[in-house]
Amino acid sequence: MVLKDKVLNLLKGAKEASLKLGNISSADKDMAILAMASALLKNTRYLLSENAKDVALANKTGISKALVDRLTLTQKRVEEMADSLRQIAGLKSPVERILRQWKRPNGLIIKKISVPIGVVGIIYESRPNVTSDSAGLSLKSGNACVLRGGSEAINSNIAIHKVITKCLEKFDIPKTAIAMIDVTDRSAVEFLLKQDSLIDVVIPRGGEGLIRYVAENSLIPVIKHYKGVCHLYVDKDADIGMALDIMLNAKVQRPGVCNAIEKMLVHKRIAHKFLPKAAGILDDKGVELRGCPKTLKILKGIRKAAEKDWYEEYLDLILTVKVVNGADEAISHINKYGSRHSDAIVTKSKFTAEKFLKEVDSACVYHNASTRFTDGYQFGMGAEIGISTDKIHARGPMALEELCIYKYIILGSGQIRS
Amino acid sequence: MVLKDKVLNLLKGAKEASLKLGNISSADKDMAILAMASALLKNTRYLLSENAKDVALANKTGISKALVDRLTLTQKRVEEMADSLRQIAGLKSPVERILRQWKRPNGLIIKKISVPIGVVGIIYESRPNVTSDSAGLSLKSGNACVLRGGSEAINSNIAIHKVITKCLEKFDIPKTAIAMIDVTDRSAVEFLLKQDSLIDVVIPRGGEGLIRYVAENSLIPVIKHYKGVCHLYVDKDADIGMALDIMLNAKVQRPGVCNAIEKMLVHKRIAHKFLPKAAGILDDKGVELRGCPKTLKILKGIRKAAEKDWYEEYLDLILTVKVVNGADEAISHINKYGSRHSDAIVTKSKFTAEKFLKEVDSACVYHNASTRFTDGYQFGMGAEIGISTDKIHARGPMALEELCIYKYIILGSGQIRS
Repeated sequence: MVLKDKVLNLLKGAKEASLKLGNISSADKDMAILAMASALLKNTRYLLSENAKDVALANKTGISKALVDRLTLTQKRVEEMADSLRQIAGLKSPVERILRQWKRPNGLIIKKISVPIGVVGIIYESRPNVTSDSAGLSLKSGNACVLRGGSEAINSNIAIHKVITKCLEKFDIPKTAIAMIDVTDRSAVEFLLKQDSLIDVVIPRGGEGLIRYVAENSLIPVIKHYKGVCHLYVDKDADIGMALDIMLNAKVQRPGVCNAIEKMLVHKRIAHKFLPKAAGILDDKGVELRGCPKTLKILKGIRKAAEKDWYEEYLDLILTVKVVNGADEAISHINKYGSRHSDAIVTKSKFTAEKFLKEVDSACVYHNASTRFTDGYQFGMGAEIGISTDKIHARGPMALEELCIYKYIILGSGQIRS
Repeated sequence: MVLKDKVLNLLKGAKEASLKLGNISSADKDMAILAMASALLKNTRYLLSENAKDVALANKTGISKALVDRLTLTQKRVEEMADSLRQIAGLKSPVERILRQWKRPNGLIIKKISVPIGVVGIIYESRPNVTSDSAGLSLKSGNACVLRGGSEAINSNIAIHKVITKCLEKFDIPKTAIAMIDVTDRSAVEFLLKQDSLIDVVIPRGGEGLIRYVAENSLIPVIKHYKGVCHLYVDKDADIGMALDIMLNAKVQRPGVCNAIEKMLVHKRIAHKFLPKAAGILDDKGVELRGCPKTLKILKGIRKAAEKDWYEEYLDLILTVKVVNGADEAISHINKYGSRHSDAIVTKSKFTAEKFLKEVDSACVYHNASTRFTDGYQFGMGAEIGISTDKIHARGPMALEELCIYKYIILGSGQIRS
């Protein structure tokens, strides 16, 4: 009861703040974000000491090295957080743009105008930088936010939140516009996900387990991607050198992220030439190959792919390969086993490329480029709050524009409906 | 188990069809929709006789007259269904439009293109015309649809579905693109709402009870409005004649719909002059007034409004009135008690109007016009699949464009990420 009251108060404060944010000028919002950046730098020592508590506890409980790395703040990482806020402040405001305007025969003027969504809930795991990034993006787009980071980062997150919210008052921005649920009890999240009258959208960021939990328990609309099972299709008309470069980049440059490839489909007419070269290069980088029966005939001794391999996001140096009869089979395979995230074709054939780009039902479909570009910064959005594989509201990288919705303003001179 | 298998097969068929619809030309989709219109007219006798079965059963079970009226088909109503399909066929195709295109410094060309959402689930109540309207709008926008109408209209819906899906094959459109769940068991809906890998969005249409049931049980994203608690705010600077006209239209022209007003807020400085005139006019039309304490001092003998009155959608000839201190109080009241649907201000003050239009957090905000215009046809969209009060994807009237999402197509020449 006490916990629920506490969460409810935070949410009510965020909701009230969201209604007030419309009257804060873009200049004031930007200045507040710049002040947040400076405050992070000024308080680096405090942030690092609070973070050290989390790291010590994490080491004691024996969680994975990768997780400890994600959790750890350094001076450089605090500087990067500040840089990220400065970049956000420098972007164009996404709100109060007239998206369309038209006049009806009865004289009514209808304006479709971009507005903030309202209150955005962000539920994430161990990276403390998500706290300041999300706060900056939400404020810039005129949204209040409710932040709920992982329990393993609780001291770091409370410290960051304390430092950045201190910058709001002098710009008349309610402190409650950036709310943080500092209760690590999971029941707080469960309760939060039912408050659809106070939160307008939830964006979960983290592993598939967290995201499924949020999607299954939320009454509030959720924008999400469960995983990135990304494909590279090497067509019979591919430039082999280009295909090898893209394959290597998309698999190896950073294997633990959602836009890295997990599967490679190769046209049967190019497989004998392409696959041995590919295997040589990948072997040098320590990539484990798995394959379909046809692949196994070309690449002796690699592990046979199980049915579940085609669905799996390894986030590791593993690549599963299938030899296909052509673009049609590649497209069907991707639409069946893929996660609608990012998929690429390498081909010199314009015809085959157009077919692939049209028929692959994914957020981002590439021709002759690496899937690793699916990212708000790489797309030129200047920031990223997440990536969506949903089919409503936003697809692919989400940044400021995707944190907005529209409203209709209708100007009349006494019109009534007959 | 048998029921689940049946539903699952229908959904799989719809999903497969959705992937094929991308290769059907706009012309063929339009011709199929026109053929559906003709088929409805040609089969009027069959449709009316099947509908008569539903009506007979409805009369036997003693449901309300209003419900029987909504359920009943006549020759004229079948003609209207056909007209509606013809109008849809005549609209511009919403898909494959380039929404934006830009080039990155590394040479990548990014195109943001409108595409169908995929599979749209429509769960509705007794009106049989929703069956043909939804099928037409879905097909036009390249979506497969899964239709689930009310059990009271089951014979009518099966008949309409049979007639319209016969028109698809000659245009190479898979019949499964328009799927109908003809099982009236509610467990079929419950099962359907968990199939988030086969349905991309659910649009429930009907009473608040149905919509809450869908929202609470769905794993699939839902776009919806629970109710329309619409307000008219009569400002101190209102043209009283205009305010009376708009009030009358918004309350009385069709009180049972979601964009009719349920509440009226009146500035204290105009209340003594305005309210007696308003009461006289509304009384003539049989409208029951309820009021806040200040209203009761001006309009003697009307019923005192209870707290719950401010939240209630009467869908009837009842109007609850509050005297307010000004636009600020009106805006706060609307943002607290309203349903974020449609709200209007009548005023000659440009300043007050702008404040109201900006700060009222509703899908449609009107200045000097009736809220009754919140409607796809009245907005000039040519059709309507529903109205949303959600804050993501679509807000206000939804038509063809709102049945689409976008994808990114990225054209490269071998770019890899460094």
